[in-house]
Amino acid sequence: MPIGNKVEYEDASPEVRAVYDDIMETRKLRWIADFWKVIAQDPATLKRTWEGMKQTMGPGEIAPMIKELIFVSVSVTNGCEYCTVAHTATARARVATPEILAEAFAVMGMASETNALVTAWQVELDERLREAARGG
Amino acid sequence: MPIGNKVEYEDASPEVRAVYDDIMETRKLRWIADFWKVIAQDPATLKRTWEGMKQTMGPGEIAPMIKELIFVSVSVTNGCEYCTVAHTATARARVATPEILAEAFAVMGMASETNALVTAWQVELDERLREAARGG
Amino acid sequence: MPIGNKVEYEDASPEVRAVYDDIMETRKLRWIADFWKVIAQDPATLKRTWEGMKQTMGPGEIAPMIKELIFVSVSVTNGCEYCTVAHTATARARVATPEILAEAFAVMGMASETNALVTAWQVELDERLREAARGG
Amino acid sequence: MPIGNKVEYEDASPEVRAVYDDIMETRKLRWIADFWKVIAQDPATLKRTWEGMKQTMGPGEIAPMIKELIFVSVSVTNGCEYCTVAHTATARARVATPEILAEAFAVMGMASETNALVTAWQVELDERLREAARGG
Amino acid sequence: MPIGNKVEYEDASPEVRAVYDDIMETRKLRWIADFWKVIAQDPATLKRTWEGMKQTMGPGEIAPMIKELIFVSVSVTNGCEYCTVAHTATARARVATPEILAEAFAVMGMASETNALVTAWQVELDERLREAARGG
Amino acid sequence: MPIGNKVEYEDASPEVRAVYDDIMETRKLRWIADFWKVIAQDPATLKRTWEGMKQTMGPGEIAPMIKELIFVSVSVTNGCEYCTVAHTATARARVATPEILAEAFAVMGMASETNALVTAWQVELDERLREAARGG
Repeated sequence: MPIGNKVEYEDASPEVRAVYDDIMETRKLRWIADFWKVIAQDPATLKRTWEGMKQTMGPGEIAPMIKELIFVSVSVTNGCEYCTVAHTATARARVATPEILAEAFAVMGMASETNALVTAWQVELDERLREAARGG
Repeated sequence: MPIGNKVEYEDASPEVRAVYDDIMETRKLRWIADFWKVIAQDPATLKRTWEGMKQTMGPGEIAPMIKELIFVSVSVTNGCEYCTVAHTATARARVATPEILAEAFAVMGMASETNALVTAWQVELDERLREAARGG
Repeated sequence: MPIGNKVEYEDASPEVRAVYDDIMETRKLRWIADFWKVIAQDPATLKRTWEGMKQTMGPGEIAPMIKELIFVSVSVTNGCEYCTVAHTATARARVATPEILAEAFAVMGMASETNALVTAWQVELDERLREAARGG
Repeated sequence: MPIGNKVEYEDASPEVRAVYDDIMETRKLRWIADFWKVIAQDPATLKRTWEGMKQTMGPGEIAPMIKELIFVSVSVTNGCEYCTVAHTATARARVATPEILAEAFAVMGMASETNALVTAWQVELDERLREAARGG
Repeated sequence: MPIGNKVEYEDASPEVRAVYDDIMETRKLRWIADFWKVIAQDPATLKRTWEGMKQTMGPGEIAPMIKELIFVSVSVTNGCEYCTVAHTATARARVATPEILAEAFAVMGMASETNALVTAWQVELDERLREAARGG
Repeated sequence: MPIGNKVEYEDASPEVRAVYDDIMETRKLRWIADFWKVIAQDPATLKRTWEGMKQTMGPGEIAPMIKELIFVSVSVTNGCEYCTVAHTATARARVATPEILAEAFAVMGMASETNALVTAWQVELDERLREAARGG
């Protein structure tokens, strides 16, 4: 089966269909994003990845909309256009306003800049900072 | 002045001291992280970077603790150890519990995995998704 | 000469043509990928890069198909679409089946996820692990 | 529980211990790498990540040693020192000789170089190449 | 306002227009690159980013054309196509010849390759090298 | 031979020694950086990499000191500490003053920030910009 091609619902095996059904039910949607249709060529990866997404992206200590912003941050930093667009769309569906997105984007920009400055200027990690990060 | 060395408060020029004072006042702290002390060798960059951080990391549509989680996401993705540790410490100071951090880390992991899968499987961006991301 | 433009065989200098001929002979192909035609604007880089590819990608302790999978792994991680596609094509030409590609992609996904988790959770390297990696 | 700290076997919950036991049995080892002990602070992530690793890194179309080389390629490209060292150690345990590692490292170097050249020289993807990558 | 959409001069607020005017005057241009028009949806980020660019990219110890080459190096390494193209264009406007660009691209390639080799081969940093980098 | 170990001059084969001699003569130094000693375990990679460095980093259209700044930019963006430090040291040896380094670091920071903003805000590449970059 060609890499990059999509497995449509009507052509899917029962195993793949069960994942598609769970995605649509969990997300309250009537369609499946292309990402899932493409990786459905490898049903084991489809199932494992969807279960990981379901486990990590749902409600918890952090609200789902905030989780989408974290997902977008990683995707922007990796330069993954599809993921950036897909999870910005999901963030919007979870009611991220343009103002929220703009603030999050500004933080991503500042973080990227200071990451580069830290490496360039050879800032060393001191133990006190590590202790503060670890808590106890 | 050697790259990587710190400009201590007592050796700082009035221009640098003014930034240090503003950092401590804004953050309600009595010390300055090494990042600022090292880039203080370039006072213009110190001032510009601090003003950018002050503008973007304070309260707004997104709570400061959440902004720290976004900052950590970028730093983890860039593999910047100092920044990861420093902003995990700040997130904790803004009351991120270990449970919140663990959830955020799990999202960063899933996002990194799916970023790679999207590129490997050559998933193409469709216009419907872009429209959903853009809103309007 | 414009950046990004291709140097076609018929317009190429003897020096560039010699590289093109060697590429086609080594790879048993009758065409030249655009990468080579574009960097041919800098003949020294063309020659050096081709010789490096010829030296490293041919048969050795690791089979050429496996080397292509390693090449794809780096390209996916760097988010280089052209390189991912080009070397997936070469892997296929060296008889990587869809099943092999799917397995390799799944490993790339897991590695990306655990890379992020290691940095986020601040896992430290212990000496025993380094010794095991070094062998002796 | 502090970020970065390890959950030792004797202090672990039954749920975490079950994963530790499965890791040691699957890998025929009598110890647990620090990565697992650190993420064990989030038992759900520990379980999910281990199951993903078990599913993707075992025998299949690609030999486990080759999968480790792919894992190392991603880790090197992400600049993750812990992961590079840990999976180089695992590759060695799966009988990767120094010659095999040296060949793999050389491919990683060439791939990184050509990734940069492709972006810098603005090489565009042509459809023929994409077709060849997709197969059909 | 939709993400990705441009704020044209005629629709811009006085605050945004003032930045646009300053960009055109500083750069001696009669048009505004899309980057500025898109981030103008967040006027505070527009202003801060432009002031940062103006402060860092103008004449100083390093000639503006060289600064553009540094900017391109970062953009190529991050795989940011828009930024690579935009700053290659600016480098050209600051009289970077094709020969200069080709030399810079070759350095980017070599650096990327050796970065990967250093991580793969686990080269450790010795103090003498750090001292030499720091100066004093 | 263990990964990460150094091949000292007195233990080196004639082939490796010839490269070491050429490095010292070309660079007017009496010592060899650890990078070369570690990759010397793979003499073919040592030779190829050194010849690439010699070809690309020497005098040309761009001064050697500027080439080192480009090298540092790539290394900072990749988060490669050894390479950042090593090539900052070489830049200093080629008379980069602290002011020059500070300016270059500031550009790297700005570029990293705008790279992230471009991806987050989904700025699209227009053909006019590409034409300007290509020249002709």
